[in-house]
Amino acid sequence: MKATIDCYFDFSSSYSYIGMHRMRRLAQSREVDLNWRPIALGAIFKALSHGPPDSGTPKGAYLRRDVERTAEFHGLPYVWPEPFPFNSIAAARAFHHLDADDGERAIEWALAVFDAAYAQGRDCSDPAQLAAVATDLGLDGQSLMNAAGSDEAKQRLRSETDAAMERGVFGAPTFFLDAEMYWGEDRIGQIERALEGGGA
Amino acid sequence: MKATIDCYFDFSSSYSYIGMHRMRRLAQSREVDLNWRPIALGAIFKALSHGPPDSGTPKGAYLRRDVERTAEFHGLPYVWPEPFPFNSIAAARAFHHLDADDGERAIEWALAVFDAAYAQGRDCSDPAQLAAVATDLGLDGQSLMNAAGSDEAKQRLRSETDAAMERGVFGAPTFFLDAEMYWGEDRIGQIERALEGGGA
Repeated sequence: MKATIDCYFDFSSSYSYIGMHRMRRLAQSREVDLNWRPIALGAIFKALSHGPPDSGTPKGAYLRRDVERTAEFHGLPYVWPEPFPFNSIAAARAFHHLDADDGERAIEWALAVFDAAYAQGRDCSDPAQLAAVATDLGLDGQSLMNAAGSDEAKQRLRSETDAAMERGVFGAPTFFLDAEMYWGEDRIGQIERALEGGGA
Repeated sequence: MKATIDCYFDFSSSYSYIGMHRMRRLAQSREVDLNWRPIALGAIFKALSHGPPDSGTPKGAYLRRDVERTAEFHGLPYVWPEPFPFNSIAAARAFHHLDADDGERAIEWALAVFDAAYAQGRDCSDPAQLAAVATDLGLDGQSLMNAAGSDEAKQRLRSETDAAMERGVFGAPTFFLDAEMYWGEDRIGQIERALEGGGA
C-alpha cells in the first residue's frame, strides 16, 4: 500500500516553505502521497504558551541566518516577506475552501502563496495580494477571498488545527508517517529512511 | 590551509553526543581539524533566560523520541543517563585540565564521558563515576577529580563558556567554520557542503 504522509504547516513559517518543497521532491521520487494540511500555528503557540524566539535574541538572530542558508542549501530562492511573521489565516482558509472540492487546486494555491511570500517577498496577509495570487492561477480572486471568510472555511481551519494539536504538533512543519511524528524540515532524511524500511 | 572547526558542546546535551560523533566521522574523511570546546551550557541558558523545554510539554515529549531516533539514524547507541539532564561541570573542567597538556588525551576523555553517559547510562555528575571512567583510560582518577576542582580548571571552563556566549552560542552543539555559526547536529550537512566549497 502506498504510504501517506500528513504534512502540517503554516504559510508564515519559513521552514514550512522549505520543508514542503523538500517533501514534494521526495514524493516525486518515491511512492508516497502527501496530505497537505495548513494550520493556524499561532493558535497552537497561544495554547501552549510558546512561540518563535524574539529576533533580538542570539537564537532569533541565528535563525534568520539559518533560514537563508538552509533555503540556499536546498536550492530554493529565499527573501523575507514584509512583514514577517505575517497573518496566514486567510491564505490557510482559502486552501481549505479549495481543498474541499479539488485537492490538486489547493496544492497549486499553497505553492503559489509560498512563492509569493518567500520568492517574491509579497505580503500574503493582504487580501488584495492573495486575490492577485489567485487570479494568476486562473481563479476568481475576489470569490476566493469571500469564500475564505465563510464560516465553513473558518471551521475547517479550526478543525485541522485542533486535530494537529491533539496529535502533538507544537511547531511547523510537522510530518506524520503512520503514528510517527517528525518535526522540522531537517528530519526529512529520517522520513526517507523510514520509507525505505517500509514503515516508520 | 587545513580548516579548523570550533565545536562547542556540553556533556549533558544528547545532541552534543550525537553531533560530536558525527563531526569525528566528518574529520576522519576530510581535511579538517576539530577544536573540542566543552562549555557550561547551563550558565548560558541562565544568562539568556531560556532552556530546554519541560519534558511534560508536547515539545519536550517529542524531543525525547527525536533524540533516540536520531541516534539510531546515525548508528549510535543511545540510553538515557540517570539522572538527565545531569550536572556536567566536573566532566567539563576535567576536560580543560587535560586539554592544557595534551589535546588528544582530552578528546579521549570526552569520548569516554559521552560513552559512559549515553551508551552505558551512567551518572556522569558523580565524581566516583568520573574517576572510574578516568581509571579505565589509564589516568589517575582521583588526581583528575582533584585537578577538576582547581581554580585553574574552573577558570578555563568559565573563559570558554564566556567566549562561546560572546560568539553568539545559545545552545549545543554549536560549530564555527571561520565566522559562520551552525547550531545543531542537523546542520553538519551544511558544514560539509561549506568545506567542499572551500569556505563557509
